[in-house]
Amino acid sequence: MIELYTAATPNGYKISIALEELALKYQVHHLDLSAGEQKQSDYLAINPNGRIPAIIDRDNNNFVIFESGAILLYLAEKTGKLLPQDPYQRSQTIQWLMFQMGGIGPMMGQANVFYRYFPEKIPAAINRYQHEGRRLFEVMDKQLATNQYLAGAEYTIADIATWPWVRSYEWSGIDITGLNHLQRWIAQISERPAVQKGITIPPSSDAPDEKKAQQISKMVTR
Amino acid sequence: MIELYTAATPNGYKISIALEELALKYQVHHLDLSAGEQKQSDYLAINPNGRIPAIIDRDNNNFVIFESGAILLYLAEKTGKLLPQDPYQRSQTIQWLMFQMGGIGPMMGQANVFYRYFPEKIPAAINRYQHEGRRLFEVMDKQLATNQYLAGAEYTIADIATWPWVRSYEWSGIDITGLNHLQRWIAQISERPAVQKGITIPPSSDAPDEKKAQQISKMVTR
Repeated sequence: MIELYTAATPNGYKISIALEELALKYQVHHLDLSAGEQKQSDYLAINPNGRIPAIIDRDNNNFVIFESGAILLYLAEKTGKLLPQDPYQRSQTIQWLMFQMGGIGPMMGQANVFYRYFPEKIPAAINRYQHEGRRLFEVMDKQLATNQYLAGAEYTIADIATWPWVRSYEWSGIDITGLNHLQRWIAQISERPAVQKGITIPPSSDAPDEKKAQQISKMVTR
Repeated sequence: MIELYTAATPNGYKISIALEELALKYQVHHLDLSAGEQKQSDYLAINPNGRIPAIIDRDNNNFVIFESGAILLYLAEKTGKLLPQDPYQRSQTIQWLMFQMGGIGPMMGQANVFYRYFPEKIPAAINRYQHEGRRLFEVMDKQLATNQYLAGAEYTIADIATWPWVRSYEWSGIDITGLNHLQRWIAQISERPAVQKGITIPPSSDAPDEKKAQQISKMVTR
């Protein structure tokens, strides 16, 4: 049994999708981010950064892991799935996982903050992050023109890390017109049963909407 | 022989420091970022994201790797160093590496952009990223209160990924007053010969200063 500490955000969905893909048993602990549950001391003992997601693997000596990218690598290595064994394909997977962790995630996160949550509208900041998001999408589109998935022919944790962010392009205000390969990839992954299940855990009633945005703007996290 | 495509930035220094620590032979290709060399087609064939660093391992079938976090993992696994074998310590290292990739790097990068490079001064954006940088430093300080290094007793690629960013706290305008454990860690790592050498490759004349900032502000990368 794996205990999953999560919320209805792209970083949270990465892990619920992976757990569904891997058919691992897990128990969901749904943290109320607007109530600050991720900053309470008992949770900080699990994730010192005070963010979701985190997991505890009860079948492996209560192994605790924070940071979504590290959790994905752990689950892939635990099961021998979603991360190719071939050294080249494996490194490709890790490279595109890092591209998500350091690029797609933070930049779309900042686009969301300035476009949706920030108390004042700052056009220069909104433009900056939407432009950078579009640029990163174009990098992906080029890669997906000659590869079925981000790291090659196999569906991997790189796709699982990236898809929950990219599919929310409208929320971030990023245009995907003309990015046909990216659009194909978004649609293709959205048809996977494990993905359809994963993005309902926790329930989507917590997904960002205008009302939620007002609450979140008080916290202004990235 | 490893070919290193780099520039005098924190992400570049991660790799020159790691190569020095591992005593691997390497050849430096110094890209002129202000001239846009990282966006030219021959380099995009190496790194589709058009950023530094990237490497080609000529001793391993011309293996090409982009994203600093992926390069660090590759070099550590190639040599069996700077990444503990013990599963718990290894995962701790990857967790703190991801903390750098998704947190310290992007947030200090945005602090630099708005504090140093952006054409207009936007106090709300500057405050946002300096505040987030300080928060992340406090997370590190707490970890370093009971651990010599980020992932525990061993110096790892997590430290190598994080130090080049954190040591530039003044450039980012982030205060480290009171963070005694963080200060101890900065000073301790700065004494390592491989680190002292690594941050001179490529030469520090390219390091950000006011004049350089004016050039960079035209590009406004993160």
